[in-house]
Amino acid sequence: MAAKTHKVAIVGVGKIARDQHVPAIERSQSFELAATASRNAEISGTRAYRTLAELLDAEPGITCISLCTPPQARYADARLALKAGRHVMLEKPPGATLSEVHDLVELARSKNVSLYATWHSRHAAAVDAAREWLAGRRIDAIRINWKEDVRYWHPGQEWIWEAGGVGVFDPGINGLSVLTEILPFPIHLASAELSFPENRNTPIAASLRFRAPTNIPITAEFDWLEEGSPLWDIEIDTDGGAMLLREGGARLLIDGKEKASGGDAEYPRLYARFAELIPTGAIEVDLAPMRHVADAFTLGKRVTVAPFHW
Amino acid sequence: MAAKTHKVAIVGVGKIARDQHVPAIERSQSFELAATASRNAEISGTRAYRTLAELLDAEPGITCISLCTPPQARYADARLALKAGRHVMLEKPPGATLSEVHDLVELARSKNVSLYATWHSRHAAAVDAAREWLAGRRIDAIRINWKEDVRYWHPGQEWIWEAGGVGVFDPGINGLSVLTEILPFPIHLASAELSFPENRNTPIAASLRFRAPTNIPITAEFDWLEEGSPLWDIEIDTDGGAMLLREGGARLLIDGKEKASGGDAEYPRLYARFAELIPTGAIEVDLAPMRHVADAFTLGKRVTVAPFHW
Repeated sequence: MAAKTHKVAIVGVGKIARDQHVPAIERSQSFELAATASRNAEISGTRAYRTLAELLDAEPGITCISLCTPPQARYADARLALKAGRHVMLEKPPGATLSEVHDLVELARSKNVSLYATWHSRHAAAVDAAREWLAGRRIDAIRINWKEDVRYWHPGQEWIWEAGGVGVFDPGINGLSVLTEILPFPIHLASAELSFPENRNTPIAASLRFRAPTNIPITAEFDWLEEGSPLWDIEIDTDGGAMLLREGGARLLIDGKEKASGGDAEYPRLYARFAELIPTGAIEVDLAPMRHVADAFTLGKRVTVAPFHW
Repeated sequence: MAAKTHKVAIVGVGKIARDQHVPAIERSQSFELAATASRNAEISGTRAYRTLAELLDAEPGITCISLCTPPQARYADARLALKAGRHVMLEKPPGATLSEVHDLVELARSKNVSLYATWHSRHAAAVDAAREWLAGRRIDAIRINWKEDVRYWHPGQEWIWEAGGVGVFDPGINGLSVLTEILPFPIHLASAELSFPENRNTPIAASLRFRAPTNIPITAEFDWLEEGSPLWDIEIDTDGGAMLLREGGARLLIDGKEKASGGDAEYPRLYARFAELIPTGAIEVDLAPMRHVADAFTLGKRVTVAPFHW
């Protein structure tokens, strides 16, 4: 097998790293997993460091860093890696605050290295087909339903309930990342209601109403207490029929008939995109999904609901 | 007297329009107040319309629109004015959401007209002197104290308590607009505590902790229940002494000795700046202060406090 082009290290060996990043890197033609940095975990067969600072010191040959830590911890590591001249890929959302990501963009620019804020759902199998199908059609209404069981998808992950963990917007931002990718016009929040469990600092449900220049109804319903199969749907009514993008973007149906679908290759596509950015030190940071979340927290009415226990 | 260059209309004849905009336009060498649009109010001696749409229709000679309405209402009017090819000046904050301001920037760009998001406190008398004094000094600590009596400064203004009205961040953002103007490095929020009165949808107090690349302590205390004189102070400890920017930027003291001060010319300076932007259709929209507020709502812990009554 030909040698892979880039040595990459994963920071934060948790669920998303094991479930998605490690397999994607294994399948990648461009990246070789050369080391990890994680406080308490490692991947057998891979050199393991406790902190990114030690890793950067010991491994000058690792040119790329993939940050899989929760968003609250990401800024300090991203800064370290960028200052050390490494290319950086960020899990979603790219940070705990918009302002820190702006700072990272400036730093990456000054160091001439790539910074890639990933939105994995944008690489679901039918998203491109949905965007192409919508182009040129009149859009009359948009409904997002993004509902899943937090106990199944984030088992015991306490950080999602800590201030800055954004709660149900952690999955909901995936829906927003897809919607902002496929729509031919910008939207912005008009109003929102956020449901905070009595004993938690982040919302467990959210109901959003957006506006577009054309004044069509746009709603999003996020819920973390949906048992059974998750509902990750975007429905768009148009003059050419009803579009339904299902299963987080994996399947596109028009008037109920399947138009496009495919297996899950979201993370392999993220690494393929990262590999495209690196040669020119390009920066790809689209903050639109995160801005909509920040707008929802700023504008949203807070409602207190029943306490949440795992 | 020579004819003034630009005819401007004020939208939203409320407290800020009467207290600041009208006198500033009267003193301006560039702008003539040609009309107003306001649901229930007018300025005697000036042509009055009930809506901006009517005004734009009837007054093709009015090339500039100054929006003094509360932020929740501003987007629709800004869009109308920009689409009609008029230059637009926005009171602070420039909108209820970050996303809508991004849209307005795109629209202004496509129409080749000016869009000016004003931050009046940046034009306080001693702000420039503070920025110049800080340049090149080592900064060790930063403290903002922005405390005033909401009953005095926003008498009966219910919109400040409505979701999207941002509460105590309405004055607090003035402090943030000054701080981001005088600092030589970017900051971002690390944590925040927001105090919501039991019967209101926006915070009456906020305690913020920011981070800077250099890891110095940066705190901001906003409070709307300060009786008597307002406290609008920024204190910065440096290797060259202790800087105190007082009275919302009007006075600069170094180690207790007055270095710069002046009368209030904030709004005249805003209109002077607007006049500079118009000839080239330049856009000046710095969202940093608003981004910090959105970050505070996203990241902040919410605490419920005693109900607020006027």
